[in-house]
Amino acid sequence: MYLMTTSAVPTPRTPVTRKDVARYAGVSTAVVSYVVNEGPKRVAPATAAKVQDAIRILGYRPNAAARALKLGSSETIGLVIPDNSNPFFSLLAHAVEDAAAELGYALLLTNSDGNPAKERRNIRNLAARQVDGVVLASVLFEPDLADLESAEIPSVLLNHTGEAPGFNSVGVDLAAGARIAVDHLISHGHTNIALAMGSNVSNSLDGREQGWLQALAAAGLPEGPIVRGDFTRPGGYAAGKRLLAAASRPTAAFASSDMHAVGILRAIHEAGLSVPGDIAVTSFDGSVEAEFSWPALTTVEQPVRAMAEAAVVALVGAARGQEPQHRIFPTELRIRQSCGCP
Amino acid sequence: MYLMTTSAVPTPRTPVTRKDVARYAGVSTAVVSYVVNEGPKRVAPATAAKVQDAIRILGYRPNAAARALKLGSSETIGLVIPDNSNPFFSLLAHAVEDAAAELGYALLLTNSDGNPAKERRNIRNLAARQVDGVVLASVLFEPDLADLESAEIPSVLLNHTGEAPGFNSVGVDLAAGARIAVDHLISHGHTNIALAMGSNVSNSLDGREQGWLQALAAAGLPEGPIVRGDFTRPGGYAAGKRLLAAASRPTAAFASSDMHAVGILRAIHEAGLSVPGDIAVTSFDGSVEAEFSWPALTTVEQPVRAMAEAAVVALVGAARGQEPQHRIFPTELRIRQSCGCP
Repeated sequence: MYLMTTSAVPTPRTPVTRKDVARYAGVSTAVVSYVVNEGPKRVAPATAAKVQDAIRILGYRPNAAARALKLGSSETIGLVIPDNSNPFFSLLAHAVEDAAAELGYALLLTNSDGNPAKERRNIRNLAARQVDGVVLASVLFEPDLADLESAEIPSVLLNHTGEAPGFNSVGVDLAAGARIAVDHLISHGHTNIALAMGSNVSNSLDGREQGWLQALAAAGLPEGPIVRGDFTRPGGYAAGKRLLAAASRPTAAFASSDMHAVGILRAIHEAGLSVPGDIAVTSFDGSVEAEFSWPALTTVEQPVRAMAEAAVVALVGAARGQEPQHRIFPTELRIRQSCGCP
Repeated sequence: MYLMTTSAVPTPRTPVTRKDVARYAGVSTAVVSYVVNEGPKRVAPATAAKVQDAIRILGYRPNAAARALKLGSSETIGLVIPDNSNPFFSLLAHAVEDAAAELGYALLLTNSDGNPAKERRNIRNLAARQVDGVVLASVLFEPDLADLESAEIPSVLLNHTGEAPGFNSVGVDLAAGARIAVDHLISHGHTNIALAMGSNVSNSLDGREQGWLQALAAAGLPEGPIVRGDFTRPGGYAAGKRLLAAASRPTAAFASSDMHAVGILRAIHEAGLSVPGDIAVTSFDGSVEAEFSWPALTTVEQPVRAMAEAAVVALVGAARGQEPQHRIFPTELRIRQSCGCP
C-alpha cells in the first residue's frame, strides 16, 4: 500500500531542477547543492537566503530517491533499540540522531520491544530499505549476528560490552562501573549490600553482577541477597518488595539500571522506610529521571553522547572497509543523595 | 558524504533480481513480492520459508530506492517531535512507529530540541527525502504551517489542540482535561490552588490555563498563584521553588505536564514539606514516569496510542485527497496519591 502525495496535479508539469534554482538565484548549481545539503562548503547567509527563496518560489525538491539510486546510498542510518520509552534508550536514540545528522544522515528508528523476533524483523526491514548502516542496541546480550552478517550492511553494536569478533561494538565497562557504585556504598559503612539485577538472556554473567561480586570480595564482605526482575520500573518495584522481605534485610542495594532503581525507591517508600536512612541505593545508567527521583539517585553515568558518536563514526569506518573495533568507554559516578551523601 | 556498503566487490556483479529468487524457489515473482513486502496476500509458511532461503542464498536485496522512484513512495513517514527524551514524546514516537509499521511504513525520527528553527530544518529535510507524510508535534502552539504547505506532502499536526484550517490535526481537549484535574483538587477541599504552567510561544491562552481558570470560576474560588517555566523537570523544579516562596502559599497545585510536576515534587521534598499533606499536586500527560514518582502522580492521561493511530490514518487519508480533519480525543483522570486520595 502506498501513499500518493497531494501534490499530484492533473496535468504533469516539468520538474524543477537544481539548474532552474541556480539560474533564478543567480548562483552556480554547486552553491544550490551546498545549501540543500547544508555543506560540505559554507555559503554566505545572504546567498543562502537567495537560494532558499528560489527553492520556495519555484517549488524545487531535491529528489532523495534519485540521489540514493545514483550514489548507492539512502543517506539513512537505521537504529534498533529495545524500547524508546526507556529514558536511557530515548537519550541514546536522540544522541544517535544528532551524531547521524552531523554527517548528513537521517535516522530510521525501530523499537524491538524487548522481543528478539521483532529485533530480527527490524534488522531485515532496515536491510531491505538499503540503509547505509545499522546501529543495533540488542535486547540480547549475545545477539544473533547472522542477521547483520546476511544483511551485508555496515553495522555496529551499541550498548554492547562483550567483544564480538568481526563486528564493531561500543559499550562501557559494566563491571568497572558496578565496582565504583558498590565501593561507594561500602565507603558509607554498609556490609549487607544487595544486588537488584535486570534479567537478561545470556549464558555469561552480566558485568554488573561481576562488578558487585568483585567489590564485595575485595572488601572481604559476604554476598548480600540478589533479586532479579525485568529491566523496567515495575520490574524494579517487584524486586524492591522482595528485597524488603529478605530474611536479613540489606542496608544498601545496587540496582543494575536507573529504571530498576526508580521501582525499588517506590517499594521502599510504600513500606514506610527511608532512603538512604533505612536502605541506601546506587544505580546504573545516568538517565535524567535518576536526577529527579526522590531522593535523587547516585548513579553510574554512561557517556551516552560519546558512545552514540563513536557508533556512527564506526559505521562510517566500516563502510570504508576499516577493521572492526571494540570500543569501551569509562563510566563516572554521579553522587547525589540516595547513597547517603549529604 | 556517503557511505558505501561493504558488499561492494572489486568486480561488479549482476544484481540478483526478484525473477532469480522466484526461479530458485520455484514460485511466481508475485509470491516473492508478497514475502518481501509481508503482503498484501498471505503466503503459506512453507512457501515463505523457501523464498526466504532463496533470498538468503542468492543474496537478493529488494531495492527500496528503485521502488521509491517507480512508485513515487519511499514508504517512510517522518516524525518531528520536540524532544524524544521527554517521556511523553518518547511514548508518542513509539506509538507512531507502531501505527506506521502496521501499514508498512518506517519512521524517520527527528527531534527539534524545542527549537523552532530546527523544527523547520527538519521538515525541509524530510520533504527533501520525499517521505510519504510528516507527523508534526510542533514546539509551537501555532506552528508556521507554510513549511508544511510548501513541502507539498501529506501532513498531520499531532498533539495539537487548536484547529488549523486546511490541515489534519490530532489532539486532546486541554481545557476539559485541566478542569477535571482542578475539580478533583477542589473536591479534596482546596481553595488556594496554584497553576504551574509550561511556557510556550503563543498569542492565545493555553487550554490548560483556561481549564484551571474555568474550574476555579465555576467553584467560586479565587485564582491561586501562577508560576511559569520550561516544560522540563528543571523548569518544574524552579517553578516549585517559586510556588513555595509565594506570599500566600497554595495548598494545592495543578501542573501542566508530568515532567513539570516531577520537578515540583522535588522542590517540595527538598523544602521538607509533604505531598499531598502540605501541598497536593495533579498533573497532565499520563506518562509512565508519573506512576513511579513519589508520591505517584494523579494525572490527566492523554490517549497516546489512539492519537498516534489517528495521526497515521489521517496521513493516509490526506494522501488519498480526503478533506483535512480536526480530531480531538477525550482525556481521563488517573487517580493515584499526589492529590490526597488514599
